[in-house]
Amino acid sequence: MGGVLEVLRSINSVSVVGASPIRGRIGYEILANLVRYGFKGEVYPVNPKYREVLGFKCYSSPRDIPGEVDLAVIAIPAPQVPKALEELCGKGVKLAVVISSGFRERGHVELEERLLRVSRDCGVRLIGPNSAGVTSTPARLHASIEVLPSEGKVAVVSHSGAVGGVAIYELQKLGSGISYFISLGNSPDVSLEEVLEELAEDPYTDSVVAYVEWVKEGRRFIEALRRLSRSKPVAVVKGGWGKASSEAVKTHTGGIATPYELFKAAAKQAGAYLAEEIDEAVEAAEILRKLRTSPRMRRVLVITNSGGYGILTSSHLEVAGAEVAPLTEDLARGIALATSKEFSGVNPIDFGGDSRAVEIVKALSLDVLRDYYNLAVVVYVPTSAETPKEICNAFRETSEVLPTVYLVAGGGSTAIARCVSGVKPVARRPSNLAKVLAYLWKT
Amino acid sequence: MGGVLEVLRSINSVSVVGASPIRGRIGYEILANLVRYGFKGEVYPVNPKYREVLGFKCYSSPRDIPGEVDLAVIAIPAPQVPKALEELCGKGVKLAVVISSGFRERGHVELEERLLRVSRDCGVRLIGPNSAGVTSTPARLHASIEVLPSEGKVAVVSHSGAVGGVAIYELQKLGSGISYFISLGNSPDVSLEEVLEELAEDPYTDSVVAYVEWVKEGRRFIEALRRLSRSKPVAVVKGGWGKASSEAVKTHTGGIATPYELFKAAAKQAGAYLAEEIDEAVEAAEILRKLRTSPRMRRVLVITNSGGYGILTSSHLEVAGAEVAPLTEDLARGIALATSKEFSGVNPIDFGGDSRAVEIVKALSLDVLRDYYNLAVVVYVPTSAETPKEICNAFRETSEVLPTVYLVAGGGSTAIARCVSGVKPVARRPSNLAKVLAYLWKT
Repeated sequence: MGGVLEVLRSINSVSVVGASPIRGRIGYEILANLVRYGFKGEVYPVNPKYREVLGFKCYSSPRDIPGEVDLAVIAIPAPQVPKALEELCGKGVKLAVVISSGFRERGHVELEERLLRVSRDCGVRLIGPNSAGVTSTPARLHASIEVLPSEGKVAVVSHSGAVGGVAIYELQKLGSGISYFISLGNSPDVSLEEVLEELAEDPYTDSVVAYVEWVKEGRRFIEALRRLSRSKPVAVVKGGWGKASSEAVKTHTGGIATPYELFKAAAKQAGAYLAEEIDEAVEAAEILRKLRTSPRMRRVLVITNSGGYGILTSSHLEVAGAEVAPLTEDLARGIALATSKEFSGVNPIDFGGDSRAVEIVKALSLDVLRDYYNLAVVVYVPTSAETPKEICNAFRETSEVLPTVYLVAGGGSTAIARCVSGVKPVARRPSNLAKVLAYLWKT
Repeated sequence: MGGVLEVLRSINSVSVVGASPIRGRIGYEILANLVRYGFKGEVYPVNPKYREVLGFKCYSSPRDIPGEVDLAVIAIPAPQVPKALEELCGKGVKLAVVISSGFRERGHVELEERLLRVSRDCGVRLIGPNSAGVTSTPARLHASIEVLPSEGKVAVVSHSGAVGGVAIYELQKLGSGISYFISLGNSPDVSLEEVLEELAEDPYTDSVVAYVEWVKEGRRFIEALRRLSRSKPVAVVKGGWGKASSEAVKTHTGGIATPYELFKAAAKQAGAYLAEEIDEAVEAAEILRKLRTSPRMRRVLVITNSGGYGILTSSHLEVAGAEVAPLTEDLARGIALATSKEFSGVNPIDFGGDSRAVEIVKALSLDVLRDYYNLAVVVYVPTSAETPKEICNAFRETSEVLPTVYLVAGGGSTAIARCVSGVKPVARRPSNLAKVLAYLWKT
């Protein structure tokens, strides 16, 4: 039997046990999301109360399902889950995702152990219980209660469904999408460690965002994270930094929260990016996978249409360890000649509020920049003189001679970030950009 | 002669010297923004090249203007500015805002001194040169090239026009608006210190966001900031933290950047909130003016529909010094009885992803909470089961027994934040909220 991701990539049939025709119910949302996201395989709702749900024939029991079932999504009261899984056993189920809560996290340890035994006896891999579902864009499968994602190359792995949902949403705000979403829940079987191991080899995934509350096997976790970090960028956020928030983990995903200091040390040792917020993790994962720069590239040129925002960004970059070296006279002359623009400032180069994106990006294609700098940051505040689309086109079509990040703020910046981010690294906050670069530079 | 804000509040006539009918030109944008924002007084464009601009009769020289002029906005090449101001002198001008750049910040110190002399001889107060303009919502006046603002109670004072523009935009994202926007530029006359002094007494202003690159008079600045901070929340952001970014200040607004460590100490001593980002400053100013809590209120109850996001938020709050004390059995029973909801977790109270905003806010009106906590934080991740409008209505209409902040994230959160923020404090990032509370608690 292959890995869980391999299974997730090739799901051709799904049964939703606990399907419901009532909006807002979990058994409705999962089935509706399967349809909305365009799953092409067989769908078998199970619920003895209904003959039909959302246009699909509904079965009284898993036993009545006529065909094979690759994936079973179970959303019925916890005490009934082990029996339902037993009944699914003969249907060739490869993976069961248990949405139902009320197991270890509510003190029902034995029930969870029974569920795990059934899954082992049956040879079914188990995600959850207390999961918000899974998404596999290679299989065009969104078997989850979270927001419909866009297709992309970022894997989201999360102990919390809603936090994973926030990550999916933040990725969309950057014009990006996911390869997989795996809401781990209590995870007695398929674990964080195992998923991280598999992601290292996964061809559909370019970077990883993980929300982690606890670690089951410390050494295995560090080793998996290290291997993964070596092959693609990984941004992790930890929940539970103090007494109360760590205590709450027990009743949330049933684990013992890993102490934050220990986790921080492990993440650092493994080479992962440690974020404090979900949006920061997403922005970091996106910049890191798009920015083709080496750890030593610290000589930074800042080019801007706003003296003040350029200065504020340089401030953050300097503290992060950037060398924001001043322009030589030669270089300044060369840039002035090539752009036909006056500019004040040495570095940041400030082309002023009456300049346009198309004018500013001219400077980015000057070969001579390579002799002085090895990274460029464009800091841009849109003005009413040009549309977000004009700005985006200018940025998208620029052939930079240096690795370049675009930092946009102010009116129109959301649209520009979403648009440019499709092909180039975009930051929305100077502090995030500075932290990402400090991580690359190991400062 | 009254203060500058008093003048700004009662502008009845404006002359735009250097008005232009060509889109994208500064002289066009200022005139167009005056019209777009609905200025009701007299408008006198001046430009010898045109007889009419944007439907207004255009004058060849300031001398030809038939009436009195309260405010002169000057956007012509720098060398011509002093003479233009002399010509305006007889027109009763109270305040001149010079948009033109090319003074001290480009090394033309004498030209700036000449401009200052003319303004003094003429008895005209001077904002700029190298300003992006001013806004006075009491006068329905937006004489600026920056984004059209919403009317509100937050004053934005900035050495940089574009950074001020970003603040205005971020305020709008929180459903909020400005009382004044003052782009200081080089500020040889009207200074940061003077504006801060006046804002302390200003009845149109509830809180202040300031972007500062340099301070002219250290003691006066600290004293003004202290008086202001005592009467209303002030969030300041400093540009220039290192060598390059401080050096750039000289060519941006012509000042010598105040060293960051010194500035930090001054801001702290004065009791201001020091932000690292513009959006953080705006969020802090908004939360601080709406949150009626005292510095000692550290016992925090977190209520959420997302176990994970609640835990992440509590993590930030704990580090900031919050006491996230667990629920007593009595209190838990009381809440369960009143809300008819099961909930896991002790504190944060996790009502789960299948709960609705209307159910969660029931808990916030329970008198008994007062016996245990003195601040509530609602952490909410919208689900597809309810609309942003339903969520907003539930939050807006809640009568909380404790001071309460709403933290929203994920799909729909932008609309909810904008909507709820009109009446109640809203945070969008756990780290911002934690930092604001740490500031209140002086931890």
